[in-house]
Amino acid sequence: MASSREDALRRIAAEIGFDLDAEIKVGGNYVPFIVSGNSIHVSGQISRLDASVVLEGRAGAGVSLAQAQRAAKVSAVRALAVLRKAAGGLERIKAIAHVTVFTQCSDTFTQQSEVADGASDALVAVLGDAGRHTRTSIGVYQLPKNATVELELVATT
Amino acid sequence: MASSREDALRRIAAEIGFDLDAEIKVGGNYVPFIVSGNSIHVSGQISRLDASVVLEGRAGAGVSLAQAQRAAKVSAVRALAVLRKAAGGLERIKAIAHVTVFTQCSDTFTQQSEVADGASDALVAVLGDAGRHTRTSIGVYQLPKNATVELELVATT
Amino acid sequence: MASSREDALRRIAAEIGFDLDAEIKVGGNYVPFIVSGNSIHVSGQISRLDASVVLEGRAGAGVSLAQAQRAAKVSAVRALAVLRKAAGGLERIKAIAHVTVFTQCSDTFTQQSEVADGASDALVAVLGDAGRHTRTSIGVYQLPKNATVELELVATT
Repeated sequence: MASSREDALRRIAAEIGFDLDAEIKVGGNYVPFIVSGNSIHVSGQISRLDASVVLEGRAGAGVSLAQAQRAAKVSAVRALAVLRKAAGGLERIKAIAHVTVFTQCSDTFTQQSEVADGASDALVAVLGDAGRHTRTSIGVYQLPKNATVELELVATT
Repeated sequence: MASSREDALRRIAAEIGFDLDAEIKVGGNYVPFIVSGNSIHVSGQISRLDASVVLEGRAGAGVSLAQAQRAAKVSAVRALAVLRKAAGGLERIKAIAHVTVFTQCSDTFTQQSEVADGASDALVAVLGDAGRHTRTSIGVYQLPKNATVELELVATT
Repeated sequence: MASSREDALRRIAAEIGFDLDAEIKVGGNYVPFIVSGNSIHVSGQISRLDASVVLEGRAGAGVSLAQAQRAAKVSAVRALAVLRKAAGGLERIKAIAHVTVFTQCSDTFTQQSEVADGASDALVAVLGDAGRHTRTSIGVYQLPKNATVELELVATT
C-alpha cells in the first residue's frame, strides 16, 4: 500500500509543519542513512522542523508532556523521510527493528515512555503493522541544539 | 543444553523474586521483541519486578552499588524471559551481540561498568559462552518510572 | 588499500599518544567485539589512552570543545584498534553502519555533534569512504571512570 503510507506521512508532516520535500541535512561528518544488506540504519534525528526551528527545552522543566510528544513526532517524521529516501519508497519497509528515543528532561521527569509514544504512534500510523517496533526510552541530560528529543532507528526491507 | 539454561534462569529469577511465568507487558505503543533474520531485538527493560514493584532511585545517591547491580540483574532476567519467548526456548540463542546498560545515577557516580556486571554475570550464568557479549555502559539522568537500570540487547539465533 | 588504512591509524594513534600494540582490555564481564555474520559489534570505548590515563571531565564545565573532540578521537582510535583485530585487518572493513557518541557534559552544553566530529573525522581519515557512517550524538550525565566520551559502533565486512 505504497500510496497510503505516503499519504499518511504527508498528513502527519502537514500537521506538525514539516516540509517533506526539503532536503534533510546532517550537522556533521556523517550520513543520514546506511543500507547494509536488508538493514537500514538511520542517524539520530533531533526534533527540528527545519534549518532554523528546533523544538527545544527540557521535559518536566518548561516543556510539557504534550510538547515533548510533539517533539518525538517530529523526530519520527524526520526518520521516516530519511527511510523513504533510503529505501526508494516507504512501501519497501518491512519492519522497524528498533527505535531509541532520548528525551532531554529534568531530574524528576519519569514519563520518557509516554514521550516516546509520540514517535511510536507516528511510525505505526504511517507503516501499519510494519511500523511496530522494539523500543528503548531514555531520559538524558542534554541533546544537540538543546533539542527536546532525539530518535534513532534501524529498519529492514 | 536447553534444560540447564532454563534451570539457571529459574534459579536466578527465584533469587531476585521475579515470576518467569507472568506475562511481560510493555508500557507503550511498541512490542517486546522483533525477530529479523537471525537477529532478535529486545526492547529496553527497566528494573521492574512486576506491574507494581520497580527497583528505583539513583545510583550514588540513595542507591548503593550492590542495589544497582541487583537492578541490572532484574533487567537482564527480564530480557532473558523475552528472548526465551522470542526464540522458542533459550537453547536456540547462539550469541548476544550487544547489550547496553543505562544506569540512573548521580553526577559523581563512575561505576556504571560495575553496575552493568550485575546484568552481564546473569547473562553468562544462564547462557554460558553464548551469553558473552559486547557492552556499552552509560550513566543517565533519568529513566522511565524512576528505574535504577534499563537494559536493551540484540541476540542471534 | 590495507597499508594506507594501517598507516593512517598509526599516524593518528601517534598524534594522540595511543599505543596501538598494547592489549585492549575490558573493564568487566564482557568482550571487546562480537562477529555475527558480516557484522562486527564493538563494545563502548571510553576515552582512555591506557590503563592509567583517562581523558576525563565534563564538556562545558572544565573541558573545552577541543579537549572533548580529542577525547572522541581517542575513543574512535580504540574502536578502530578493536575492529582491526576483529576483522583481521582494517582492509576488510566495508562499512561503518552506525556510531553512537556519548559526551559527558554540563546541562547547557549543546555541541555534542561537534564533539562527535572528532571521532567521525578519525573514522573517515582511516577508512575513507568506508568510514562514512550514521551517527547519534547524545549528552549524558555521567560516564564510567568519569570519561569525557564513550563511543560504540557496528561495522560490516
